[in-house]
Amino acid sequence: MQKLKQQVLDANLALPQYGLVTFTWGNVSGIDRQRGLVAIKPSGVAYDGMTADDIVVVDLSGNVVEGQWRPSSDTATHLALYRRYPTLGGVVHTHSCHATAWAQAGLAIPALGTTHADYFHGDIPCTRPLTAEEVQGKYEHNTGEVIIETIGNNEPLHTPGIIVWQHGPFAWGKSADEAVHNAVVMEEVAKMAWMARGINPQLKPIDPWLMEKHFSRKHGPNAYYGQK
Amino acid sequence: MQKLKQQVLDANLALPQYGLVTFTWGNVSGIDRQRGLVAIKPSGVAYDGMTADDIVVVDLSGNVVEGQWRPSSDTATHLALYRRYPTLGGVVHTHSCHATAWAQAGLAIPALGTTHADYFHGDIPCTRPLTAEEVQGKYEHNTGEVIIETIGNNEPLHTPGIIVWQHGPFAWGKSADEAVHNAVVMEEVAKMAWMARGINPQLKPIDPWLMEKHFSRKHGPNAYYGQK
Amino acid sequence: MQKLKQQVLDANLALPQYGLVTFTWGNVSGIDRQRGLVAIKPSGVAYDGMTADDIVVVDLSGNVVEGQWRPSSDTATHLALYRRYPTLGGVVHTHSCHATAWAQAGLAIPALGTTHADYFHGDIPCTRPLTAEEVQGKYEHNTGEVIIETIGNNEPLHTPGIIVWQHGPFAWGKSADEAVHNAVVMEEVAKMAWMARGINPQLKPIDPWLMEKHFSRKHGPNAYYGQK
Amino acid sequence: MQKLKQQVLDANLALPQYGLVTFTWGNVSGIDRQRGLVAIKPSGVAYDGMTADDIVVVDLSGNVVEGQWRPSSDTATHLALYRRYPTLGGVVHTHSCHATAWAQAGLAIPALGTTHADYFHGDIPCTRPLTAEEVQGKYEHNTGEVIIETIGNNEPLHTPGIIVWQHGPFAWGKSADEAVHNAVVMEEVAKMAWMARGINPQLKPIDPWLMEKHFSRKHGPNAYYGQK
Repeated sequence: MQKLKQQVLDANLALPQYGLVTFTWGNVSGIDRQRGLVAIKPSGVAYDGMTADDIVVVDLSGNVVEGQWRPSSDTATHLALYRRYPTLGGVVHTHSCHATAWAQAGLAIPALGTTHADYFHGDIPCTRPLTAEEVQGKYEHNTGEVIIETIGNNEPLHTPGIIVWQHGPFAWGKSADEAVHNAVVMEEVAKMAWMARGINPQLKPIDPWLMEKHFSRKHGPNAYYGQK
Repeated sequence: MQKLKQQVLDANLALPQYGLVTFTWGNVSGIDRQRGLVAIKPSGVAYDGMTADDIVVVDLSGNVVEGQWRPSSDTATHLALYRRYPTLGGVVHTHSCHATAWAQAGLAIPALGTTHADYFHGDIPCTRPLTAEEVQGKYEHNTGEVIIETIGNNEPLHTPGIIVWQHGPFAWGKSADEAVHNAVVMEEVAKMAWMARGINPQLKPIDPWLMEKHFSRKHGPNAYYGQK
Repeated sequence: MQKLKQQVLDANLALPQYGLVTFTWGNVSGIDRQRGLVAIKPSGVAYDGMTADDIVVVDLSGNVVEGQWRPSSDTATHLALYRRYPTLGGVVHTHSCHATAWAQAGLAIPALGTTHADYFHGDIPCTRPLTAEEVQGKYEHNTGEVIIETIGNNEPLHTPGIIVWQHGPFAWGKSADEAVHNAVVMEEVAKMAWMARGINPQLKPIDPWLMEKHFSRKHGPNAYYGQK
Repeated sequence: MQKLKQQVLDANLALPQYGLVTFTWGNVSGIDRQRGLVAIKPSGVAYDGMTADDIVVVDLSGNVVEGQWRPSSDTATHLALYRRYPTLGGVVHTHSCHATAWAQAGLAIPALGTTHADYFHGDIPCTRPLTAEEVQGKYEHNTGEVIIETIGNNEPLHTPGIIVWQHGPFAWGKSADEAVHNAVVMEEVAKMAWMARGINPQLKPIDPWLMEKHFSRKHGPNAYYGQK
């Protein structure tokens, strides 16, 4: 687990470097699928000075297996996503400014250009509101459930992020590192979409052939971006 | 007093680090409730090179007890708040950009999401305008009075900040450090609210159950965010 | 002149530090009133590596008195202002982002709050457009003239800056250093005013008594901000 | 080629320094006109740690002549521009935030002020959308073609940049370094234009005489900005 803990530490430390978090407002986890164990940031602990030993390991039911701290208060959301979607290797939650503004606006981040389509196949959806019962009950678990309800049977790696109504963004990837990468992209496209709609409220969504081209340039069997 | 002066120094130096101030446009104070003494930034002195010896100590009537400089020109506002609300341990005033824009707009910063609700229980209010008489009289004292008029008998730590009409934000907390923490949050939620309303002018305020959940996750007897 | 050249160098180097310039898009000058000589940035020279020896000295008619470079292409504007207003000790021109946006919008930066009133007594005016003749003739000189036409017989230190139609900001002060200080403030209030009007298009200008109070707190015989 | 490769490396490394790129979202090339060879960034390789040996050299038909990596996936766009316009010495493509927002809005970046006119003689055009056939065919080549269709027989150095519909900015210059310089300017004027139109939706385009004056101050036989 030491290697996964180190990866999860590095991914957590990348959050302030990319400007995605203020204070402790973010958490990244990574999963060891073979053992069914998840490494995640401790709750409310500052990034500054955090070491791999501070990372908490839990099983898929949320029992702490390793570590001296309480795991992130959002752990149950991460676990719900890992249980439902076997392709996920890492999950991240932040309150990054622009993506959170879309969450507060209650709107999906629209696919408006190739920057978006290079990573996200279609709009980045916004969940429905949680009901009072869902919030007052197992809130963090239910946050995972409403994300799952929104994604359904779609492959989550094709649109590797979502915004939760009046809350903020979750993103994911094949690893903790890739999850953070996608969170950076989401923040960037959230910013561009805010500006683009300000410039031209009547703008059009991205042409579908352009979206397909850019997504498939980077993903899938015919990808040709990067070094093989 | 040396310890309090050091804490107040550190809190003042945190203002430029968090990007809350330009030049000397901000001041933090902290109070020693047992002695009834307040340590506060000197007026118009640059943060760069400031030491604990530059911090001024005044009693609750504003008499200088210790220090070689004149205290912040806003001292009377800080003192009015300390006298009225015994739970306050630190107070901060800045002209941070986004919170000040809301002050100039003359509107409360609306509670739109969980980032806001994690710290502020409800909208961050905007005071009424001061009258010509209030401005021409004991201006800084009256600024404190209009803040008090707005908060009334509510617990100020539940909404630990306010914006003063056409002026800018004041924030507070149980200590000088926590006051600055809350000022950072206020600036961040002011920024998000500006963007969110730009994206969707018809957005809804945060669902009340979601606000209660997030505020109580971090505050009060059932808090479960962080360690313990 | 060495001391003035050093002050003008320092003031020019402060421009990139405060984020006011991209590349070489800015210039600061300072005047020695006794000798009637003006020290100013050389034209199109990068800030990085600039020394006091690179600063050019000209007389009030624009003749180079000292220095190996051509003076800033905007020198004639600076000189027109120095000749007309004897209280000016320093002048600065930048294309700082937010103030320039107001220039492109063709509108005065409205006085909306105390941040503005602490430095500027009233709106920061926008000049009329220069005519084709004025632009095709002695353009930089005429830029000075249209600034003078806008300020008229008002004391320029009371509103120490202006925006030139479709061009950008000029600011000034009792010294080169103070001119840059005022340029930083202008950029900051330009940013706040942009946001504040976005938040509330029906916002009101600052209450006149509040403007008087803040301006006189920092300026004039009854000033009480800072250390005497 | 070593010298050109170094120049192209330096120009690529300048992209993150100027804040124009996130991750690897940008590429710069430079051409040796005598040999007909183009040096360009490798595809999907991080800027951090990149050396001149990582730069790929291709001929004007796109055959790799030197280098261990695959060239940028946008190489065909660069080559189309070099083949058509003999005055180009360097080309750059980024997804810089504000310019990309205009591309997503589908609008030309309007010439609103002298900052713009110092570098761009007129609006920075937005291409038409590529058709599904153009996207599904030789996409990157066709991106070059649609840029050429937009510029036509105009001198490309007079408006050294363009935005591609729903994609992002391309810029160019007499060298790789100058191309990046122009990309920085494009991002800056894109930002200013966004703000200026937000402040005053009824603003006017720059007065034609002012545009001519500023462009000719820096360009052409009568230029007098800078040192000769």
